[in-house]
Amino acid sequence: MDIKDIFSNNYLNKEVTLYGWIKNHRNQNKFGFIDLSDGTTFNNLQVVYESSINNINIVEHLKVGSAICVTGIIRKSLGKNQSIELVSENIELLGSVDDDYPLQTKGRPTREFLRTIMHLRMRTNLFRAVFKIRSEAAFAIHEYFNKNNYIYVHTPIITTADCEGDSQMFKITTMDLNNIKNVDFEQDLFGKNAFITGSGQLHGETFAAAFKKIYTFGPTFRTENSNTKVHANEFWMIEPEIAFCDLDNLMDIEEEMLKYVVNYVLNNTKEELNFLDKFVNKGLIDKLQKLISSKFVRITHKECIDILLKSNNKWEFIPSYESDIQKEHEKYITEYFNGPVFITNWPKDIKAWYMKVNSDNETVRAVDLCVPGSGELMGGSVREENYDKLLERAKEKNVDIEKIKWYLDLRKYGTQKHAGFGMGFERLIMYLTGIENIRDVIPYPRTPGSCEY
Amino acid sequence: MDIKDIFSNNYLNKEVTLYGWIKNHRNQNKFGFIDLSDGTTFNNLQVVYESSINNINIVEHLKVGSAICVTGIIRKSLGKNQSIELVSENIELLGSVDDDYPLQTKGRPTREFLRTIMHLRMRTNLFRAVFKIRSEAAFAIHEYFNKNNYIYVHTPIITTADCEGDSQMFKITTMDLNNIKNVDFEQDLFGKNAFITGSGQLHGETFAAAFKKIYTFGPTFRTENSNTKVHANEFWMIEPEIAFCDLDNLMDIEEEMLKYVVNYVLNNTKEELNFLDKFVNKGLIDKLQKLISSKFVRITHKECIDILLKSNNKWEFIPSYESDIQKEHEKYITEYFNGPVFITNWPKDIKAWYMKVNSDNETVRAVDLCVPGSGELMGGSVREENYDKLLERAKEKNVDIEKIKWYLDLRKYGTQKHAGFGMGFERLIMYLTGIENIRDVIPYPRTPGSCEY
Repeated sequence: MDIKDIFSNNYLNKEVTLYGWIKNHRNQNKFGFIDLSDGTTFNNLQVVYESSINNINIVEHLKVGSAICVTGIIRKSLGKNQSIELVSENIELLGSVDDDYPLQTKGRPTREFLRTIMHLRMRTNLFRAVFKIRSEAAFAIHEYFNKNNYIYVHTPIITTADCEGDSQMFKITTMDLNNIKNVDFEQDLFGKNAFITGSGQLHGETFAAAFKKIYTFGPTFRTENSNTKVHANEFWMIEPEIAFCDLDNLMDIEEEMLKYVVNYVLNNTKEELNFLDKFVNKGLIDKLQKLISSKFVRITHKECIDILLKSNNKWEFIPSYESDIQKEHEKYITEYFNGPVFITNWPKDIKAWYMKVNSDNETVRAVDLCVPGSGELMGGSVREENYDKLLERAKEKNVDIEKIKWYLDLRKYGTQKHAGFGMGFERLIMYLTGIENIRDVIPYPRTPGSCEY
Repeated sequence: MDIKDIFSNNYLNKEVTLYGWIKNHRNQNKFGFIDLSDGTTFNNLQVVYESSINNINIVEHLKVGSAICVTGIIRKSLGKNQSIELVSENIELLGSVDDDYPLQTKGRPTREFLRTIMHLRMRTNLFRAVFKIRSEAAFAIHEYFNKNNYIYVHTPIITTADCEGDSQMFKITTMDLNNIKNVDFEQDLFGKNAFITGSGQLHGETFAAAFKKIYTFGPTFRTENSNTKVHANEFWMIEPEIAFCDLDNLMDIEEEMLKYVVNYVLNNTKEELNFLDKFVNKGLIDKLQKLISSKFVRITHKECIDILLKSNNKWEFIPSYESDIQKEHEKYITEYFNGPVFITNWPKDIKAWYMKVNSDNETVRAVDLCVPGSGELMGGSVREENYDKLLERAKEKNVDIEKIKWYLDLRKYGTQKHAGFGMGFERLIMYLTGIENIRDVIPYPRTPGSCEY
């Protein structure tokens, strides 16, 4: 039985046996209070014991963090902070905590300190909230796509072809790197140089050409050597690809999906969001509720730059019709429209080779979604469906044609207008939780110089 | 609009516009029939056209595999193979197929041939069925755990600690392997030798010690150089870990979860299963239905060996109380009980160091689940929760203690009886589809010498 069940069903006056960990313990003269958590719900259950209890000598010294088993009766709470409590008949100590337990003492440990004990930090309220929301958001994503006839595809992690380019990818090998002299990839397990992937898009497109609507949801990797609050070397991505889809359809899907996920999280992690709203990011719930009811604005990159240039803002980076937009621009434009903004038709030179070029031959049918408070959350495009044009663009960008012949094949056999987007899952979790450092939304983050555990 | 919607809602006498690919085309004198698929449902929609149609010169020559857009009226079909059909008013060719299209010709291509065109094989009925079932089974797994209060945890792929041992793991690096002289891991991105994971269990346990019930579902990797029908170097695993759980609870969970997934797939992929039952594995649906209603048998390893030794079977490998059981034994024992069999309490010497040793000091509280037709499907155990005993076992098995200190910590801070299991997702899909080669249930399989695409 889970403590969650105790809160969501009527167990009044019934005897139950519960397992959990002690979150707090107030031992008074004649009785004591234990806040018990088994992790299945954000709220702790208050356990009351009297000094007449069986093994009071042990019970009165129970330490925070200990695992216990409690049998007792559920009754209406006499206190005002909780609706029910458990009046214990028996408390058994299963596992105590050594004196060096880093979470035992009072006070709120800093997030920096908690990153040094990643194997324990999920026991704190903050990380219980974050990782519960992460779990529910993942489920909401699967549910949205499943309900809407998408196929979930496990695109390969190990690959010899990648749309982001080899230089940004980790190499893998079975060779003994400590005793390496002449590197002969033919002797390696796959008989060639292989990588772990930075994107499942290309493989995803092959499935969209059979199932029409597909999505990936898996880990991706970049070797980027940058220690910032928003970069990690390992992160999860959602990459839908949709056949017979143009840019307007794509934006409809992005908007609908995001609203579905935000709504799901609002409905299914209320306690966690209340906690985060109170202690981490004031206004968080308002922000999320507002997103659901807003109509996302759609402007072109050119229109966006027009607005930025007309403003009186002092820019660190001057907005330019030929360039990407910066964090400060994203912030301005979402505040300008007071809501999420789709920015379309980007200069082709700053975007990827597989994106469809517009008839102006200067912009591509790409779209980025910026949201208030977080900036860019998704990036997508119509993919070039014409064989000759795609081949030309790939050559322009020095893509190794030999490695993507199979991808080009899609344009020879039943080609069709199609589009897709990518959403970094951690970006989404940062948006949903108000947490500003990517290290604090990943169970075991991998960043340059840091791969503990 | 999806073709799935056309079949599941009432569109009779309504005009619709549909996009899809031509699966078959029979052009007769005054009219023609096109089997149209958009991949959202296993059934094709029959499109009828008359020779009076607008661009008949193009339409009558449409090739299998072409992408088209059709507008017309849905009506009751006059044929007996389908309930409804689309009487077309306009057909537009979006993308034709080059003459070398490998799936255009009649006849059923072999699976070996289809493995040479992995970017196209998902367009065949066989692989449409397999990958749809794979997608639905993945959703059923998420739904089961979500409904039952489990947290979904993304344990890290890149790791420096792994319970399966370094030797079976791929190394990763950002170093230029073609120009490597003196290997200095301190100069590598993480400042040390790193791997891609073979299991999320150890990390999963740290989350179970906070959330009670967690599961992982992600890719795992082994460097095993074996080219068999059941081995791949990249595969997906589901690894639940449950605090306050003993071996009996664990078997209850495994049984309930498997029945949930099988039932879900039976209800949600009927056409696909009918196809596989008819053309791939006769009796498949019966097998799955029988599993749901069966009570899984629970025997010890000793009892299993007793039964094997008593039989008159001619064994290739003689059953032994000290050894693992072989494929032939799994087959016999599931046929003997005519259903799934849990085998518990294995000799400790052939099992992993983190498994809890029984009081006999010879066996561990491990359990394997064998199912008829597929053999071992899941493997799990109670984890040793006592710090000293776990440390001793780790040393016995030459585990690098320095690397797993954080894992040992769990036994110092609120330790509790806990258990978990692993299920290879591809094993499950082979069981659900009746497909015998693991290469045919993975979108882009990675096996020794084979990492195309």
